[in-house]
Amino acid sequence: MSEQNGRPAESPRRVAPSTDDVGTDYPGAFPNARKVFVEGSRGIRVPMREIHLTGEDNLRVYDTSGPRELDVRQGLPGLREEWIRARDVEETGRTRSLAEGDVEMPDGLARRTLRGGSPVTQMTYARDGEITPEMEFVALREGMDPEFVRSEVARGRAIIPANINHPEIEPMIIGRNFKVKINANIGNSAVTSSIDEEVEKLRWATLWGADTVMDLSTGDDIHETREWILRNSPVPIGTVPIYQALEKVGGVPEELTWEIYRDTIIEQCEQGVDYFTVHAGVLLRFIPLTADRLTGIVSRGGSILAKWCMAHHRENFTYTHFRELCEIMARYDVSFSLGDGLRPGSIADANDEAQFAELKVQGELTKIAWEYGVQVMNEGPGHVPMHMIRENMEKQLEWCDEAPFYTLGPLTTDVAPGYDHITSAIGAAQIGWYGTAMLCYVTPKEHLGLPNRDDVKRGVVTYKIAAHAADLAKGHPRAQEWDDALSRARFAFRWRDQFNLALDPQTALEYHDETLPAEGAKVAHFCSMCGPKFCSMKITEDIRRFAAEQGLETVDAVEAGMEEKAREFRDKGGELYVEEATEPQEVAAAD
Amino acid sequence: MSEQNGRPAESPRRVAPSTDDVGTDYPGAFPNARKVFVEGSRGIRVPMREIHLTGEDNLRVYDTSGPRELDVRQGLPGLREEWIRARDVEETGRTRSLAEGDVEMPDGLARRTLRGGSPVTQMTYARDGEITPEMEFVALREGMDPEFVRSEVARGRAIIPANINHPEIEPMIIGRNFKVKINANIGNSAVTSSIDEEVEKLRWATLWGADTVMDLSTGDDIHETREWILRNSPVPIGTVPIYQALEKVGGVPEELTWEIYRDTIIEQCEQGVDYFTVHAGVLLRFIPLTADRLTGIVSRGGSILAKWCMAHHRENFTYTHFRELCEIMARYDVSFSLGDGLRPGSIADANDEAQFAELKVQGELTKIAWEYGVQVMNEGPGHVPMHMIRENMEKQLEWCDEAPFYTLGPLTTDVAPGYDHITSAIGAAQIGWYGTAMLCYVTPKEHLGLPNRDDVKRGVVTYKIAAHAADLAKGHPRAQEWDDALSRARFAFRWRDQFNLALDPQTALEYHDETLPAEGAKVAHFCSMCGPKFCSMKITEDIRRFAAEQGLETVDAVEAGMEEKAREFRDKGGELYVEEATEPQEVAAAD
Repeated sequence: MSEQNGRPAESPRRVAPSTDDVGTDYPGAFPNARKVFVEGSRGIRVPMREIHLTGEDNLRVYDTSGPRELDVRQGLPGLREEWIRARDVEETGRTRSLAEGDVEMPDGLARRTLRGGSPVTQMTYARDGEITPEMEFVALREGMDPEFVRSEVARGRAIIPANINHPEIEPMIIGRNFKVKINANIGNSAVTSSIDEEVEKLRWATLWGADTVMDLSTGDDIHETREWILRNSPVPIGTVPIYQALEKVGGVPEELTWEIYRDTIIEQCEQGVDYFTVHAGVLLRFIPLTADRLTGIVSRGGSILAKWCMAHHRENFTYTHFRELCEIMARYDVSFSLGDGLRPGSIADANDEAQFAELKVQGELTKIAWEYGVQVMNEGPGHVPMHMIRENMEKQLEWCDEAPFYTLGPLTTDVAPGYDHITSAIGAAQIGWYGTAMLCYVTPKEHLGLPNRDDVKRGVVTYKIAAHAADLAKGHPRAQEWDDALSRARFAFRWRDQFNLALDPQTALEYHDETLPAEGAKVAHFCSMCGPKFCSMKITEDIRRFAAEQGLETVDAVEAGMEEKAREFRDKGGELYVEEATEPQEVAAAD
Repeated sequence: MSEQNGRPAESPRRVAPSTDDVGTDYPGAFPNARKVFVEGSRGIRVPMREIHLTGEDNLRVYDTSGPRELDVRQGLPGLREEWIRARDVEETGRTRSLAEGDVEMPDGLARRTLRGGSPVTQMTYARDGEITPEMEFVALREGMDPEFVRSEVARGRAIIPANINHPEIEPMIIGRNFKVKINANIGNSAVTSSIDEEVEKLRWATLWGADTVMDLSTGDDIHETREWILRNSPVPIGTVPIYQALEKVGGVPEELTWEIYRDTIIEQCEQGVDYFTVHAGVLLRFIPLTADRLTGIVSRGGSILAKWCMAHHRENFTYTHFRELCEIMARYDVSFSLGDGLRPGSIADANDEAQFAELKVQGELTKIAWEYGVQVMNEGPGHVPMHMIRENMEKQLEWCDEAPFYTLGPLTTDVAPGYDHITSAIGAAQIGWYGTAMLCYVTPKEHLGLPNRDDVKRGVVTYKIAAHAADLAKGHPRAQEWDDALSRARFAFRWRDQFNLALDPQTALEYHDETLPAEGAKVAHFCSMCGPKFCSMKITEDIRRFAAEQGLETVDAVEAGMEEKAREFRDKGGELYVEEATEPQEVAAAD
């Protein structure tokens, strides 16, 4: 493999993914839930997580975890295999390119490679009026009408990233009229981590709710890492192909060529990558616009292409060859994620000329991709203070003709490295509410190091919060039922139900048990915060019971009661009130 | 003490605060910073944290940590003692009521108690045109004009909570034209925790940036806990007096009386509490409005008063005696924090009739308090989805005549117990941007248990993020300099400066060192995320150097260069381009 570059055989990436704990993590993470399947036509079975509740009907929620009881050396079953085979596809006549290097690649991961004889994109079918099985699948998953799904995909307002060489995915949709999605980034770097860890991160991220995963590997064995990931991923996988292309030229941006990039694209199309970040909007003439920035260019892909442009004094080859890219990607149904290579890397650089110049080009490229039937989303920032977030969404909707927006946060301040999952969740929730379709997670390690298992979980859970808060604010028809179920459980002191309904049940349980570990506390009508005497919810129960006994459940009844009290007061010469008040008090009449 | 109620002597609350580590925690938390003082007139010395930087001028930031090298058994010095003595105050002739029970109360904490001969509030002085030392102090602290501070306080748009019996505080201001502030709640409950822990939480919370602290103790030894806290607090202390009043009647709300409540108020005025949460807007006739709620009444104080109202079928005594409360509080300069006893406890209950009925009464009471010169802020929710947050701010500004708003979050979804510092920081940042003056923190333990030391820190740091993001969005004149300093350090690979400028330097350093522990990595021009070859910031450095060498630093120069290249292309018969492009590509002209 070209990206091996003769690296020494003692690479730590030889370690194969472990199969320990496979299948046991789901009940560990969601103790009182089970996977159920909603059935559609054509053998479609859509997974949902059904949370078992004690005091009311079970609740079904969206589930991204995928099949978990399988051997990672065999990969996942090809859920979409038959649907894809029924299309205009041909085998390229060779099995997937497996490792010729020093990395263990089990035979079980080998697959045949397909290519479309014509464009085989969901957009193409949607435009032709066809409701594909993938569309039906996402309609069931979202609780939407399949025809609506089709029309949104045809219009370009939503995408279903689904490479024909990635039959393992459970289809999902990215568009602002659907649930807000989140992406988790994984990937080894030149400095650290192994394939083993990356596959485990993939499984871990999807367990907690990642809707797509980007493999941003930049170190050794990029191809093999990706193969392991793809064959085990129930969610769409995105990549930034320029990273692998750069490895192929020894890490020297100036030595990149269109041919090397194109070959890398084809290699990844054949492997089954579902969407590519392509920084085709980084144009030569925009580079000087970054000269006075506080933090210059902070996108890796953007800076690589900028350096190439500058060194050759020529236009970005992903821009000049954009139509060729479209032709290739249409044959595999790989979606564009048009990169924002000039996104701001600091509050000071937000919404500047460089950023918006690129966004405008993203809009032009979106329309070109649509000519070829290729699905497109647009990447957005970055670091943006709250009052400047909405402008990003408005310009993207206008210039990119409502193609799905996919933002990284944005981070709303620069002052909290170590907490950038939070600085960015604040921005992500807002831009999700405004219309962003997918939020790229940020972990606590952002700007500091590579995320470990705990960081991935914190990033994913934090972004599920941002996405769900956005769904509530957008008024997604099924969002609030989850909040209501949890709040009912809380108010009724159904502690176990409350934990089980949490995004992260185990953490909720552990936090509760830290102060009140006894089993009895899980049925107690109070908690450690206020204790039994001060519990407002317990008192509310008392008030409601009392009101029912006294017939004081309505405003009218209370006012009638007040009238009665006032008469009593007059009858007794006012004693009743004087008894307690030391002197008559006057207050403004309250409304 | 009445709240002792003859409890057994083996109470775990006997333990006195430890003096270990006193004074060593500041350099531990902020390794390359030192406390400096900005000097004003009248001996005023305003503390600031000066962060030492290697590549540019040191940065001074707001600091709430207070004196830290003192014995907690002696309490803090009376910074405001002379300013207060110069006012119309009289000694009540007795030292503070110290413990007669079983709790150790060192002699060093004894103080004389003062009462105003007339209203002694900052608002009264401000209206008289006087710039008090407290106003000058906060003006220096915020970088504002003292006359502006005075006018905001006179107008009621900002408050300086500063009981004359709490001379230990470093004055601070709460108002929407100043930096957004955060409050941290501490306090033991009937179930757990000791005085020792609470004093330590106070010191810990102010170390990380709490601007005020509320002591919400509900268990044993409320009075003594508060005394320890007040004497050691450099920030204003708030309480909810109904909690202590309820302890005095054995925890039975129906047995509360106005007299018991009034005596409690006076006791706390004399101790030095700076603001009281008073749920005077919970009116009898509003209680039925909560009957159909999903989560009823979730405010402890609100539910206690609601139960009293319902049981007696009479109006809330804090409402009927509100003017008497004003008269008392004016003599000590205790500020009102008008409670929102009917705030929503779930997304389903947000912005309902009960909530807004109470808010309207809060507005009426605000104007009554102002008649007496008593400073006022208004408490706000709670649980509110994002799209319903702004309405809260708008109604509060209108109905409460721009008195400072002080909100609890709001939490933007109910589904993430264990992460409610994050669900609420999303809402807090937004409402802070819209104009809320102080944000009450929420810890990860919210709804589950009492926060420990780590939870307090996570809550405070998370809320510093929300407050700072709001300051940026509001355009506070000095907010962005901190972000810019950090981003410059980041871009210049000044790792140490980046860590030191972080809200939590130690965590930033630890996260970095997890992947690149070597000392050399702190001067490396790359990090573990991308490695040396892929570092966008390093590449940007290269691009800038190259552009400077080639004279390609402006858009004009780049376009001239393109023209040159095009001529070269024509001269060579187009070979240069054909060499790389396999076929001519057409793309839409990018604007």
